[in-house]
Amino acid sequence: MNKSKFPLNKAVLNDIIKDHEADLNNIGIRELKRLVDHLADHYKVDFLHFEFGVPGVPADKIGPQEEIRVLTEDKNLPSTYPPFDGIPRLKKATACFVKAFLNIDVEPENCIPTVGAMHGGFIAQAIAGRRFKTADTILYLDPGFPVNKLQTKFLGLKCDSIDLYNHRGAQLAKKLEKKLSTGKISAVLWSSPNNPTWLCLKDEELKLIGLLLTKYDVIGIEDS
Amino acid sequence: MNKSKFPLNKAVLNDIIKDHEADLNNIGIRELKRLVDHLADHYKVDFLHFEFGVPGVPADKIGPQEEIRVLTEDKNLPSTYPPFDGIPRLKKATACFVKAFLNIDVEPENCIPTVGAMHGGFIAQAIAGRRFKTADTILYLDPGFPVNKLQTKFLGLKCDSIDLYNHRGAQLAKKLEKKLSTGKISAVLWSSPNNPTWLCLKDEELKLIGLLLTKYDVIGIEDS
Repeated sequence: MNKSKFPLNKAVLNDIIKDHEADLNNIGIRELKRLVDHLADHYKVDFLHFEFGVPGVPADKIGPQEEIRVLTEDKNLPSTYPPFDGIPRLKKATACFVKAFLNIDVEPENCIPTVGAMHGGFIAQAIAGRRFKTADTILYLDPGFPVNKLQTKFLGLKCDSIDLYNHRGAQLAKKLEKKLSTGKISAVLWSSPNNPTWLCLKDEELKLIGLLLTKYDVIGIEDS
Repeated sequence: MNKSKFPLNKAVLNDIIKDHEADLNNIGIRELKRLVDHLADHYKVDFLHFEFGVPGVPADKIGPQEEIRVLTEDKNLPSTYPPFDGIPRLKKATACFVKAFLNIDVEPENCIPTVGAMHGGFIAQAIAGRRFKTADTILYLDPGFPVNKLQTKFLGLKCDSIDLYNHRGAQLAKKLEKKLSTGKISAVLWSSPNNPTWLCLKDEELKLIGLLLTKYDVIGIEDS
């Protein structure tokens, strides 16, 4: 990093903040990232992005290497539709991963790749929200990733919330059962480790949540 | 193709059809593709897929070559989020393409890549359907791609339809204006060249459609 550029020029900084219509007291993660990208571009300086989930660890080369191999060897691939039911090799590998990582047996046909947890959360909410007419609400264990709630709104579903700071262990189970017993909840969505706080649900909490989801036939969506 | 495998065994064929719960008199394009894939796999025989949009022309090597170059040279790419506002190089290239292909000036920031027309049609409907509370209907110039209507339903919007077989030229404009003037139409969606009939709208028809869309502030979505 070129230290001679620091401290950054106040007038330039203020102009950029004004350009972005940013209020630094209330700025969201995405606005902040965009603002800092602008600064990085302006000053030709790299910033560490502690506000954003880029750990800086390079991806294992096994992925890019295999992508290069397939692109090199299968000339027709880029002009061919993937199979409707998904790529068998990927679905089988997903099932193997779930077995190795979580010790859960799941059929490859039930493993649906998405482009990330945000996409997976969207589809899972869409399905959960249409199982029963009266169950039109996604229950969040907060704090959480705000985009999920925008997805709920996009899908025409309602949001409800339990705050994890005030409800852990038996308190969480009690509060959860009260909500689930209304029949209005189609899914419970949480992240663990939590985004953005890194809070982790304990094994016994996850077990209590699982038992209640089964009892009330509600879908659990975990972003982990 | 190994001719000795033909004619295919009737009992095997019937079993596969039964397995797929397929009614050949009413089969959809996707079910048919899946059925034929099953046959191809069983007999180790390649089929030409006239029912499906795979023309069999290999993609230009410029695309895969560049993908291989980037994957080889930028080790951090696979573990890095793309920018929120899109990849500047791709957005600029899209604007250049639109200028060269359609002679239309559009800013790179207004070029939004999607994973295909189906994805583009989904997002465009979602936006169009939320501009005005009373305009909750997507108007289709039929025949069309049935998945688009499933998207409309998914989004909680309504469908209306004008059949192109009975309405062309001035007749189409008259019928279209009658629908648009109700204020209920948020977007008009058509494909030209048409999927699945290859019917093409004439320049003067596209002009009439454009004028009416502008007059009534309705969004046009073309899958072409």
